[in-house]
Amino acid sequence: MKYMKKSFSKMVPYHSKLITDGIILNANEAPYNPPLEIIELSKEEMNNVDYNRYPDMDEVLLNEAIAKCYKIDPANISCGVGSDELLDVCFRAVLEKDDIALGFTPSFSMYQVFAELVGAKFIGVKGDDNYLFNVDDMINKIKEINPKLVVICSPNNPTGQYFSEKDVRRIIESTNALVLLDLAYIDFAEKDYCKISLEYDNVISFKTFSKAMALPSIRCGYCISNKDNIDMINAVKAPYSLSTFSQILAKNAISNFDLYKDKINEIKKERQRLFKELKNLGFVVFNSEANFIYTLMDEKYYQELLNNKIYIRRFDNLHYRITVGSQTENNMLLEVLRCAVQK
Amino acid sequence: MKYMKKSFSKMVPYHSKLITDGIILNANEAPYNPPLEIIELSKEEMNNVDYNRYPDMDEVLLNEAIAKCYKIDPANISCGVGSDELLDVCFRAVLEKDDIALGFTPSFSMYQVFAELVGAKFIGVKGDDNYLFNVDDMINKIKEINPKLVVICSPNNPTGQYFSEKDVRRIIESTNALVLLDLAYIDFAEKDYCKISLEYDNVISFKTFSKAMALPSIRCGYCISNKDNIDMINAVKAPYSLSTFSQILAKNAISNFDLYKDKINEIKKERQRLFKELKNLGFVVFNSEANFIYTLMDEKYYQELLNNKIYIRRFDNLHYRITVGSQTENNMLLEVLRCAVQK
Repeated sequence: MKYMKKSFSKMVPYHSKLITDGIILNANEAPYNPPLEIIELSKEEMNNVDYNRYPDMDEVLLNEAIAKCYKIDPANISCGVGSDELLDVCFRAVLEKDDIALGFTPSFSMYQVFAELVGAKFIGVKGDDNYLFNVDDMINKIKEINPKLVVICSPNNPTGQYFSEKDVRRIIESTNALVLLDLAYIDFAEKDYCKISLEYDNVISFKTFSKAMALPSIRCGYCISNKDNIDMINAVKAPYSLSTFSQILAKNAISNFDLYKDKINEIKKERQRLFKELKNLGFVVFNSEANFIYTLMDEKYYQELLNNKIYIRRFDNLHYRITVGSQTENNMLLEVLRCAVQK
Repeated sequence: MKYMKKSFSKMVPYHSKLITDGIILNANEAPYNPPLEIIELSKEEMNNVDYNRYPDMDEVLLNEAIAKCYKIDPANISCGVGSDELLDVCFRAVLEKDDIALGFTPSFSMYQVFAELVGAKFIGVKGDDNYLFNVDDMINKIKEINPKLVVICSPNNPTGQYFSEKDVRRIIESTNALVLLDLAYIDFAEKDYCKISLEYDNVISFKTFSKAMALPSIRCGYCISNKDNIDMINAVKAPYSLSTFSQILAKNAISNFDLYKDKINEIKKERQRLFKELKNLGFVVFNSEANFIYTLMDEKYYQELLNNKIYIRRFDNLHYRITVGSQTENNMLLEVLRCAVQK
């Protein structure tokens, strides 16, 4: 790439091909569509939309709906094209070239990309032999390298580990760095503590419509923080990034979050079942509070799944992440693995 | 903003409040909605969408539709959240800190923001007393400062000046820099030469669905260039930035571009009329090949328009930009100005 600057030459872009046929368990998507009421309400609103006008760049109605859901002030919210855009904006706003962002590893691969995009360095704190992260290791590393940015993903993608509110507070209180709390999967976990960001100067919580809310198609995420941090994000993020239709759908989804509760509980139950069954089949699996399970398996099982058009996420020839699908989808996955194990 | 890096402290974010009542001539939006066929077709397709799946990050169907429209290869296209996202990606991909991007001034204000976001410097070549840019001035400045990036907006926002294909080729051929050709308003001009980017190593053309295609609500733009430059853009831009619905609407709009032709011709006629009438009223106006007219007027006229809920774009107390609206809207604007002049 002739015109690409030298510092970008080693960047590995994220890529995932669209799969339209088969059982898709590779992207942590929900196996259900949003409740029909939400879709119908949104379609009706779209009938009155001026397609020829820019979206509301202040996302007033959407921010109000999110604020109402959490009983907070709309001024403490900003929305973006997935929480990805908002995370990227924070990396850009805070980090100078050669600054350091600290997180756990393995975690969401885009943190490293966001750091590289500003010429900063991402350092990852590793877990133990069971990929279990230790909060004290993080706190020690913070003291050692004094990063400008700390990113915590809870539950962590791809390992599934959930950090308790207490542990997260310990990390926050151990540092002057800005702490980005990526809670994309927290609706599947024990407790959603996204509002703790309002108690500190140095925390921004990120949530998304792409996981429990079953709306990755609209590419919408939001963050919650004090007014000063929200001002920073709004100053740096692109104007008009979120389309009118995405704003409408997101507003109606969060205003009817209760309608999702049964579906979310089903996923949690299926997660427990999948975990147990995979373990019974002899696979190494790790405790997860998200809608996926991290597992170690021989590549032959992955190939066998592929042969049956069942798609899971492959990191290398040992590490895989399986999204919790519907009961039927999970049964089909287990059936293929069962046969393969018995071969 | 406590956590914002020092180099960003002087950044002035772009902001525009949503206006829902009155005559909106401040954002270069089309005064017409997209043809009904396009909306209906899109709504039908949306009935079959899996809301719970990520959009196609390769935008295959949309790129194919754009390629068909221009009779080019889909591999020469990339789409983004407005051409804004794609321009931003190019600034990020090419410029290191302290590098220089060159353009004309005044032009689209985001070029300067994109440069600042990567710690680079935007230098603007000024026009003559009539805000008329001279291509030789640009070529001389290129020789003098040897920039890494050159941005040409044709027709230029906000002055309306159109650069002929010949002039643009002269600029391109005078430099080894990457030339970004922002053609957001070219559908209102004499000739759309966006495909010339395929004849050079160093050119990327940018077009948008937000202007002539009357779809700012979907936030979609695209660029055309050789495979190497498209690879660079795809490596740096965010995965999954464009929502499923935006992709569907954009695909149907470009597949039916012919349906827009009459509307575009109407705007061109209204532009000529508005230009003549404003001139007759004694205002300083500048030739435009876009869907807006740059004008110098005393602030009292702007206030009078505001009093009548007619919104035009104000740059300072002398410089304004008026979007060409519908015949009725333009008549109302002219009527208010006529009364104000006669006072």
